[in-house]
Order: sequence, then structure tokens, then C-alpha cells
Amino acid sequence: MRETDDLQSERTRLRRFPKRGHYDRATIDAILDAGIVCHLGFVHEGQPFVIPTAYARIGDRLLLHGSAASRAMRALEGGLPACVTVTHVDGIVLARTAFNHSFNYRSVVVLGVATTVEDLDDKREALRGFTERIVPGRWNDVRPPTAQELRATTVLTLPIDEASAKIREGPPGDEGDELEFRAWAGVVPFELCARPPIPDPRLAPDIPTPKYALAHPRLPLRE
Amino acid sequence: MRETDDLQSERTRLRRFPKRGHYDRATIDAILDAGIVCHLGFVHEGQPFVIPTAYARIGDRLLLHGSAASRAMRALEGGLPACVTVTHVDGIVLARTAFNHSFNYRSVVVLGVATTVEDLDDKREALRGFTERIVPGRWNDVRPPTAQELRATTVLTLPIDEASAKIREGPPGDEGDELEFRAWAGVVPFELCARPPIPDPRLAPDIPTPKYALAHPRLPLRE
Repeated sequence: MRETDDLQSERTRLRRFPKRGHYDRATIDAILDAGIVCHLGFVHEGQPFVIPTAYARIGDRLLLHGSAASRAMRALEGGLPACVTVTHVDGIVLARTAFNHSFNYRSVVVLGVATTVEDLDDKREALRGFTERIVPGRWNDVRPPTAQELRATTVLTLPIDEASAKIREGPPGDEGDELEFRAWAGVVPFELCARPPIPDPRLAPDIPTPKYALAHPRLPLRE
Repeated sequence: MRETDDLQSERTRLRRFPKRGHYDRATIDAILDAGIVCHLGFVHEGQPFVIPTAYARIGDRLLLHGSAASRAMRALEGGLPACVTVTHVDGIVLARTAFNHSFNYRSVVVLGVATTVEDLDDKREALRGFTERIVPGRWNDVRPPTAQELRATTVLTLPIDEASAKIREGPPGDEGDELEFRAWAGVVPFELCARPPIPDPRLAPDIPTPKYALAHPRLPLRE
């Protein structure tokens, strides 16, 4: 077992720009908690596959779920190594030289082998936790999963104990002579934002819009 | 060689929700062209790695680049199979049942083996095309790469000939009895937007902000 607060391994250590690497749980958790969709990597017959999927961090584990029939879920249930990557693209960095162009971003890579949640009660509880992480307050408003729906869903947990964060922030890295080149330089910030909710056309007109649909706790609302 | 307008293979065919799958070049190109950052998957000693990186589509190829020293570039230069995934998260779908919750998204998965651009002139031209795809108009404003910078950069192209797109859009999929459950239902749209540019603190004050920094052609500006 690795030291609790150092999730570095030979496999997660950053070679390039080591100053951008972070391996402490607080930094890693903060990046994970700011996101909703990860990119999940697995290998099938020697071919890497990368698929987008929702995730939630619950303590020191990532929760993933999917159709029991999906290729990704079947691969991971079988104990194959996985990689979960979460990325926030915070902006594009326009430098004075082509070479120094970059992005500002925060990303986390988690490597590991997932464990399947088998018991139906545990699955239901995991899905409740999952939903409440993604849309706090939603679970009690909706019809809970039936036993059949639970059986059709694979729920996996992935331990967060071999991981790295990578952060690039701030202005362009131009230095020395490069600063004399007369080009505009700076950052265009990017942001994933929420827009005003769109009710289902079949929504009963007397059902009010819940707060969590009007203002997502982790995404700024831009009208 | 596969039919030009059908990029389906046994490996890219969607098993789950086959109606969400698209394999024609126009659909795939439109999703690729709406993005800037992909998630690149490769395998190293049996472990999948997924890293975020910028990309550009030039015709029927994806262009990728990175430090010649990076693990990803070295793996792909060696002819290992790669997976490039581009995802736009368009919103969260709040259904009446927990089970029907989903995301609206557009994603593309491209499988293949990359080719390295070796010649320095070809590299320079590739990087020009790359930059112009990501920030049209930028290349002529900046100091072009030196021979040393070109040598420190690996440029790869990945053919787009085995690929799939997956699209989920519209309201929640509740049906039958589910529609009677009295929960708010609808979509909270998500959008990656640009914010007003932040000049480098060391920017000469008489250099005006270029148009491409004020309004990115592919991202809406939200003040």
C-alpha cells in the first residue's frame, strides 16, 4: 500500500514539465470533483479504446457505471487494467512564438483495476451516491431503479491510489528574446458552463423547475 | 481500403444504442471540427494510458503533436495502435426515473496507427496547418518555429478510416408509465464557452488584441 498522500508511481510520474505534476490527494481530489465526465481507457485485443463516461468520486474511489452489455464494462469487470482521465480545459495560451503555444488545463490520470459492485442493495446505494455527486438533490425526486434496472447496470469502483495531476496555468512561457517579438500574447479562458434548462415537452406544467436544474453547483450558469 | 464514406468496422460498431451510432464522414468530421482537445489512448506494458492533447483535422487525417521526449509520442512513433476520442458534453438529461438519466453528447472514436512526419519542412507546414485550424489567423502573427524547436517536436498523423460517432440529443427517454412519475424532467444544456481574453502582463501596451482572441470561431463568447 502506498503512502496515503502520495499517489505517484513510476507509471504516473510526469517526465515532461515535472513542475506541472502533482501527486497529493487534495490536488487530485479537487480536479476530480470539478468534473462530471471522464475518459475511460481499456485494452481489447491489443487495441486501446477510450470512451467518455460519467464518474463520481466517493472518498478514495471512483465510481463508474454502464450497461452490463457494454464492451467497456465487460472488459473492466474482467479485471483488466484501466485508465481514467479527467480534464478541464481552462484556456488557450497564445504565445509570441509558435513553439510556446499551449493550453491551460487541469487533468488527472488514475490507473488501476476496478472492482464490481455485485449486491443489489450495494448497487442501489452506489448509484444514489453517484447521482447525488453529479446532481445533488436529484435522487429523492426521481423513481428509484427497479431490480431489473439494477441487474442491467454494471457498477464499478476504481481505487484512487496510483494517480497524477497535471496543471498548467498562467500567461505564456515566453522568455528572453522571445518577449521582444511583437505579437499579442495572453490567454483566452475557456469554461464549461450551464445554460438555462429546457423542460421535457411532455412535462406536466404544474411541476416547478428544481434549483439544481437552474444552477449546477459545479458549473457557472451563463444566460 | 474501406469505402470512403463508411468508417465502420467490427471494432467501431456500436453495440449499445445502435441508433446513436454514425459512421459517415460528414457526421464524424463535423464532431471532430467542433473540438480542440482530444483524449489519446495508447498502451504501454499492458497498461492503457489516456492523455488530453490538442488535435486538428486536416482532410482525412488527424494531426497530433507533442514533445519528442513524451511517452505518448514515443509509443505512437513506434507504430503502436492508438485511439483518439473527441467528446462534446452537450448537457445533462434529467429523467423521471434514475435509470433514464443520461447525458447529451457528441463523440467520435478514431482507431488506427499513426505515421510520423519526419522532414523539417513538412513538419513546419503541418504545424502551420495545426495552428491555423485551432486559432485561424494566428500563424502569421507569431515567430515561426526554429529548426531546433522543430526537432524537439514530434508530429504525427492518424488516418481517419476506422471510426465511429455517437450522438445523444433531445429530451429524456422516459416512456409509458415512467411519464406519470411526477418529477421535473428536461435537459440542462452544457457548453464550452470562451471568456474575455487576459493579456500577458508583459505585453507591450500598444499591441492590439487580435480578433481571434476576442471571438473564437468555434466557441461562443460569454461575457
